[in-house]
Amino acid sequence: MSASDAGFLAAIQEAKAGAEEGGMPIGGAIVSSSGELLGTGRNRFVQDGSLLHADVNIGVQGGTSAFENAKHHPLAAFKNGTLYTTLSPCPMCAGAAIFFQVKRIVIGENKNMSGREEYLRQHGIEVIVLNDQVSTKLMTDFITNQPQIW
Amino acid sequence: MSASDAGFLAAIQEAKAGAEEGGMPIGGAIVSSSGELLGTGRNRFVQDGSLLHADVNIGVQGGTSAFENAKHHPLAAFKNGTLYTTLSPCPMCAGAAIFFQVKRIVIGENKNMSGREEYLRQHGIEVIVLNDQVSTKLMTDFITNQPQIW
Repeated sequence: MSASDAGFLAAIQEAKAGAEEGGMPIGGAIVSSSGELLGTGRNRFVQDGSLLHADVNIGVQGGTSAFENAKHHPLAAFKNGTLYTTLSPCPMCAGAAIFFQVKRIVIGENKNMSGREEYLRQHGIEVIVLNDQVSTKLMTDFITNQPQIW
Repeated sequence: MSASDAGFLAAIQEAKAGAEEGGMPIGGAIVSSSGELLGTGRNRFVQDGSLLHADVNIGVQGGTSAFENAKHHPLAAFKNGTLYTTLSPCPMCAGAAIFFQVKRIVIGENKNMSGREEYLRQHGIEVIVLNDQVSTKLMTDFITNQPQIW
């Protein structure tokens, strides 16, 4: 697992699209156990007030969920899959990873948000933190420029 | 807190509407600390394949979220509020309750699904289980009639 994985690149692309829209730059993607990209999403709290998170994987308030965008797949499609997220998950998004029974969660960065890594591991989910500089800079810039939203 | 609370009645109404649509009869509602009904929702997995849960509060696969329907409210509106759900929450929905910082979760029944009550309490959330017969019958009938979906 690295920052050049297709799944992670899809998540970063979503985060960048969010930044371009003026939104929270948090993106995610869900990939099946066979490697199929099932869905991508990004936080949309700023854009439309949605409280759903960028991917059921992300960070803070609101987004278009990677899981929701992948909704035409049966639940079983997510089992043992990999969830990519540019920011360490909030309690809701961590719970979604558990509910959808993913095998692994790949996190871009957990400097700007953290705390659910151990909870995920307790549920048998492999947690990989990439310490990806692009993910970190996107969030740090947002928090610096929009402290009232964050 | 009782099964005749306005918030719980709103959740039951959503569950019944779901049953009438042939869907999973799981409903929820979110009420602010000052008593304002902020949003209601129901599981819509059968109806439209949505993987979002009935209320970010409910049970199993997919729904129109009470939190999502309440999205025009600021995040602070949910803090110390009460989340009503006809069925004990899944990990995602329990995580949402934690993320949105509700004070209390009122559960219709936890016979057909349970397991997150202690996790919620560990996060300082008061958990009230009503053992409501209407909630239980709605779920039991669905599971009996649609075992392949449940």
